Amino acid sequence: MEIRATRPKVASPLDAVARQWPAQAVGDQVKQKSDWNLKSLRNFSPRSHYLVGVSGGRDSVALLHRLIDLGYRRLVVCHLDHQLRGRASKADAKFVERLAAKLKCEFEIEGTDVAELARKAKQSIETVGRTARYEFFARVARRRRCRTIFLGHHADDLVETFLMNLFRGAGPAGFAGIREISSRSVSGTELQIVRPFLSIRREEIDRYVKTRRLKFRDDASNESTGPVRNRVRRSVIPYIEKQLGRNVRSTVWRAAMISADEADWLEGLVDKKQVGAAQLDSQQLRSQPRALQRRVIHKWLQTHGVGDLDFELIERVRALLDPEVTTAKTNLPRGRHVRRRARRIFIE
Amino acid sequence: MEIRATRPKVASPLDAVARQWPAQAVGDQVKQKSDWNLKSLRNFSPRSHYLVGVSGGRDSVALLHRLIDLGYRRLVVCHLDHQLRGRASKADAKFVERLAAKLKCEFEIEGTDVAELARKAKQSIETVGRTARYEFFARVARRRRCRTIFLGHHADDLVETFLMNLFRGAGPAGFAGIREISSRSVSGTELQIVRPFLSIRREEIDRYVKTRRLKFRDDASNESTGPVRNRVRRSVIPYIEKQLGRNVRSTVWRAAMISADEADWLEGLVDKKQVGAAQLDSQQLRSQPRALQRRVIHKWLQTHGVGDLDFELIERVRALLDPEVTTAKTNLPRGRHVRRRARRIFIE
Repeated sequence: MEIRATRPKVASPLDAVARQWPAQAVGDQVKQKSDWNLKSLRNFSPRSHYLVGVSGGRDSVALLHRLIDLGYRRLVVCHLDHQLRGRASKADAKFVERLAAKLKCEFEIEGTDVAELARKAKQSIETVGRTARYEFFARVARRRRCRTIFLGHHADDLVETFLMNLFRGAGPAGFAGIREISSRSVSGTELQIVRPFLSIRREEIDRYVKTRRLKFRDDASNESTGPVRNRVRRSVIPYIEKQLGRNVRSTVWRAAMISADEADWLEGLVDKKQVGAAQLDSQQLRSQPRALQRRVIHKWLQTHGVGDLDFELIERVRALLDPEVTTAKTNLPRGRHVRRRARRIFIE
Repeated sequence: MEIRATRPKVASPLDAVARQWPAQAVGDQVKQKSDWNLKSLRNFSPRSHYLVGVSGGRDSVALLHRLIDLGYRRLVVCHLDHQLRGRASKADAKFVERLAAKLKCEFEIEGTDVAELARKAKQSIETVGRTARYEFFARVARRRRCRTIFLGHHADDLVETFLMNLFRGAGPAGFAGIREISSRSVSGTELQIVRPFLSIRREEIDRYVKTRRLKFRDDASNESTGPVRNRVRRSVIPYIEKQLGRNVRSTVWRAAMISADEADWLEGLVDKKQVGAAQLDSQQLRSQPRALQRRVIHKWLQTHGVGDLDFELIERVRALLDPEVTTAKTNLPRGRHVRRRARRIFIE
């Protein structure tokens, strides 16, 4: 039995990962029509209303059209003008506004000077841009009373993110960087983020855009592409593929999808009371398996508003569990600390 | 608080991973003496007897000396002559025999024509060599009534294995390719494998070997190094480090150590009765989380003697869970199959 043969029948506990990386479909001349199976949409009825993040770049424009193809009608197109490319940024916004009107979608726009914010926060443009986008989405979500947003990330984005996280030493949850369906708490609003393209390759999106002769703004999505991602995409991955003579994107994509599943499972095993509490009981935590200790610390810090959680920070907090350390304190970003005193671990 | 400062005090639930990648130690002129903290040895008393795999190459020779430094006296040096390099292979064996005698260790040797076996089995020399080594170790373990073997794998081996597994699409357990302490069932013998050097960098071993002026056989360990590993070591990793301008080995090493911990934890959650049974109940399995399904299938196939478990095979078995597939069968290596009939999944 071939997986591809059973693919359309696969029932709900089986998932995107059971499908093969759709390499064969690319360049397949017989299969001219795009018949993507966007499984993550199964639980999102076309009759409900949703937000869609649209930069004006190819991926998000393709997503918007695909959703319309699939019968979604009550979409709110959300565009944040990052003001990074002057007049070109304005033209992107204009383009998205017109597209939304043409497709009879509602439209929400805001502008933020991301470069200025990045300078002030001493953070990268990508990081600040991402934060600004989610905050914008959360504002629209509250205004529109609609908490679900579709985003255009695709399989190659997942692969690149996975490798970037691996190489920069993201924490235990880092591997599962992008998921098909996830939730994110932004300024008190719980956004549900859905990425219908996460199993679709960039080339397949290219093909769809060409076949449909869709217009898009060439540089619009580059606003969220940092130099590291560009190097991973354009140099690192092609080099590895050449050296090893195999399609590395497909195996990394599968690894990322597996990691997301494992992360979901493991996070489900974390004691919500434990991570919700103001303090961690160091003795209790010490008795748990190491992998669980990491998840608990990660979730606990996240719950208490600590961002930028990389592996090293979690290990520093984990080192506080050592009963032989008497004055135990470790630094957090923005001048905060984690301290252990009399078996209690707390943030101050 | 710095991790490095607390390192020597870290108690047993804290572990190798809490230590930083020992990059700073390399080239540190002050610290000439080798004072590695081989934590994985904590539970292995120097008074007991153990096997040590020694190819004659630098890493295993360094390990043997380090164990002797640490007071281990009842060691059985095990050497398998892979007969891949004619006279040079014989000289390796002679070298290891003399070293064992000099260090007052017992010595076990066997010879296998690995190239011939690989031809017959149509498998790579590395795969066949590895299998032959473990079978040899298991025979010695039975003869000597000693099930614990020390092997010389180090931090860079772990990094390379992790990346190789990632790029070739190993299954969910593949990430945790090498662990500090693991067990492996070989022809009915349960070997306990300990890798004391798994947190030690190649450069640090180099330094130790130079400082101690240890002799070793230059090509001896290359018998287990395939062309893919060589390319990962010599081209892929240096290229990534150059492109991203950072030490990627350290972050990948941490990721591999985390994955090993998570794998240990997750494997502990797998129902032993379920994976020990001849058949899997497809309905029961379907109700479990996807990540657990994969672990169960992996363990179940392994328990029933199915080797070469990559991600794709596990997903094909997992696809049998789909109740809509009526005649469900998928191929295993060596002409075996997994079949689903009336809610039962079995091997035939």
